Amino acid sequence: MNELLLRGGRPWTPGAAVEVADILVRDGRIAEIGPGLTADTAETVDLAGALVLPGLVDAHCHLDKTMFGGPWVPNTGGRTLAGRIANGEGRREELGLPSADYASNLLAAMVSGGTAHVRSHIDIDPEVGLRGVEAVRAAAARHAHRVDVQLVAFPQGGLLTRPGTAKLLEAALAEGVEVIGGLDPAGYDGDPTGQLDVIFGLAEKYGAGIDIHLHDRGALGAWQFELIAARTRATGLAGRVTISHAYAMGELAPDEQRRIAETLAEAGVSMITCAVGDAPVVPVRVMRAAGAGLAFGNDGIRDLWTPYGDGDMLRRIMQVSFRDRLVADAEIELALEAGTYGGAALLGVADYGLAVGAQADLFAVSAETPAAAVVSVPVRSLVVKRGRIVARDGRLVTD
Amino acid sequence: MNELLLRGGRPWTPGAAVEVADILVRDGRIAEIGPGLTADTAETVDLAGALVLPGLVDAHCHLDKTMFGGPWVPNTGGRTLAGRIANGEGRREELGLPSADYASNLLAAMVSGGTAHVRSHIDIDPEVGLRGVEAVRAAAARHAHRVDVQLVAFPQGGLLTRPGTAKLLEAALAEGVEVIGGLDPAGYDGDPTGQLDVIFGLAEKYGAGIDIHLHDRGALGAWQFELIAARTRATGLAGRVTISHAYAMGELAPDEQRRIAETLAEAGVSMITCAVGDAPVVPVRVMRAAGAGLAFGNDGIRDLWTPYGDGDMLRRIMQVSFRDRLVADAEIELALEAGTYGGAALLGVADYGLAVGAQADLFAVSAETPAAAVVSVPVRSLVVKRGRIVARDGRLVTD
Repeated sequence: MNELLLRGGRPWTPGAAVEVADILVRDGRIAEIGPGLTADTAETVDLAGALVLPGLVDAHCHLDKTMFGGPWVPNTGGRTLAGRIANGEGRREELGLPSADYASNLLAAMVSGGTAHVRSHIDIDPEVGLRGVEAVRAAAARHAHRVDVQLVAFPQGGLLTRPGTAKLLEAALAEGVEVIGGLDPAGYDGDPTGQLDVIFGLAEKYGAGIDIHLHDRGALGAWQFELIAARTRATGLAGRVTISHAYAMGELAPDEQRRIAETLAEAGVSMITCAVGDAPVVPVRVMRAAGAGLAFGNDGIRDLWTPYGDGDMLRRIMQVSFRDRLVADAEIELALEAGTYGGAALLGVADYGLAVGAQADLFAVSAETPAAAVVSVPVRSLVVKRGRIVARDGRLVTD
Repeated sequence: MNELLLRGGRPWTPGAAVEVADILVRDGRIAEIGPGLTADTAETVDLAGALVLPGLVDAHCHLDKTMFGGPWVPNTGGRTLAGRIANGEGRREELGLPSADYASNLLAAMVSGGTAHVRSHIDIDPEVGLRGVEAVRAAAARHAHRVDVQLVAFPQGGLLTRPGTAKLLEAALAEGVEVIGGLDPAGYDGDPTGQLDVIFGLAEKYGAGIDIHLHDRGALGAWQFELIAARTRATGLAGRVTISHAYAMGELAPDEQRRIAETLAEAGVSMITCAVGDAPVVPVRVMRAAGAGLAFGNDGIRDLWTPYGDGDMLRRIMQVSFRDRLVADAEIELALEAGTYGGAALLGVADYGLAVGAQADLFAVSAETPAAAVVSVPVRSLVVKRGRIVARDGRLVTD
């Protein structure tokens, strides 16, 4: 029996007051939460009043693209989507991408920051084939006890416009990749109905989830939100469909945002925002008020698309919260909830949260309140994954 | 004779390649830069290849408002300018503001992050009077050898709309406050010509600089940029006038941005952007291409306006750079230059920079290139102010 007793922390439950409690972990799950717990055989850690939060969820990143921990590579991608795609494909070979080592470096940083669950898009096209899947799976295997990694078969170079890609996406799903991706069905691929036919068809055939990158702005983006919601309703895939980035959502007038959020909630379509650069952020309060699914991710990190990023999911929650002008504690807690419980729901994580019976994925920080933890982004003093201590004071624990 | 030899660092000069060199500091100034320097009596620090950057300049903050280092205060300001102003004034007494202790806490954090020069706005109105000036001066005195602090007499509650304020602003200038502030001459104060009459009149009378908060958006903001440029030309105050925030600048079409930037450059008016929340950022490349003055600041930090902020100026340069989608190394270096040389020029700092004869205000970080330093925001391993080591490894050196 493997026991860990976390003494004197302050576990957070969304919407509830934070109070001091001990947490007893047994065989990877939370066995008890309450004051004055004892366990003779348990390893004991004194949390000294630290705030305890459930493991962070990075619901949108690109592990196959990263050069994290490698030498500095000046960015030559420019500012257009097409230019970045061309740059990403053109230089990946010379730079040794996709790389299990770089992906592993990044996963180590994510774990050190308290991230317990990751969804990573993996570029698939006729040139790279499924090598990204192999590289990221190899990296994830090195950290198998520290973090759970879910993959998206992602047609970064286009789907209909890139002959041979659909077959490769299907091959990825056939060998167990959990989610099928999409990319601007209208603005990049030029045939929204056609792209959705392929994606939703593959999702139904393989029982996969769906996660569509949607950078299209304004009316074109908003129209596709409704198109995707309608298709989700028609296929019975409610709860398994995600629109990533969804820049247009941040541009709509407030009443349009509300209407779309309600449509998404009713259809079972979630959104992910990454607060990248100056791109519009999906409005947190509007999504939450409508009951629509919402999660966050770090997006690209130190890759051929962007030189920025550090993999710190708590800092990314702060960034979304800062960009979305969440200022009251209750508002900032909405963002924290999206970066934890929201991400877990979107990824379909079972038994998530700080509750008896849940998987013991959690971390501790020195912060007065949950909102203060988001704002100040403190060092993660302790990170626990399935009951095991995987990081301390911002550094990975290696066995 | 007080000597410090910094051995084996890589000092940065904008636009030049970074090469290993020693830096000999004597009596607070850079005496020599080059390979293989020796000095028998000097304290020697081995920089081991660290990048050396000139001291950061926080050209826009509000030291009088901060509650940095104090207990967490949930924000009740909301999202409108008027709401924040009312909240800020309404709660400052109960919270012990303005506070020399909080301002001192924040200055300590700024210094630890490599900031050498600060311009702080100080709220002045008939209720608070000049108490903010006193508090921040007291805080600055505690850190007198660590950082230089310049004050702006700022009519946060309005100027024409707040009888009695103009007299207090004048009193502040009369007793040595260096800069006269303004606040949305049209959108908040309702009489742009009237507010500029007062501000420019006081600046001429007391030889003060001018720094006007301009939140007004769209055409109203853009019109005031031209109004301020015209007034600057008419008064001979070229080089001494700043527009802070200038949100409208980030909203204009590219050709309008260029035209305004050229107008500002020609009139000798600078801009400061803080990349606050979701507010538009002044376009770095456009301003620099036109030769217009540009600097950055942290704006409000842990105060009644915003719960966010940590005083780290390098991280703020990253935020501006990230928001403005600067991706190539040369672009990111433009932002670094604005946060150092640009700020120093705006504040009128004499003898600034990494050059022989300049004041020895500098810091060291572990980073491959200047762009990498901006992107990765590394711990400041060494901070030197006027030749004295004032922080190491992100912590203040106390004597």
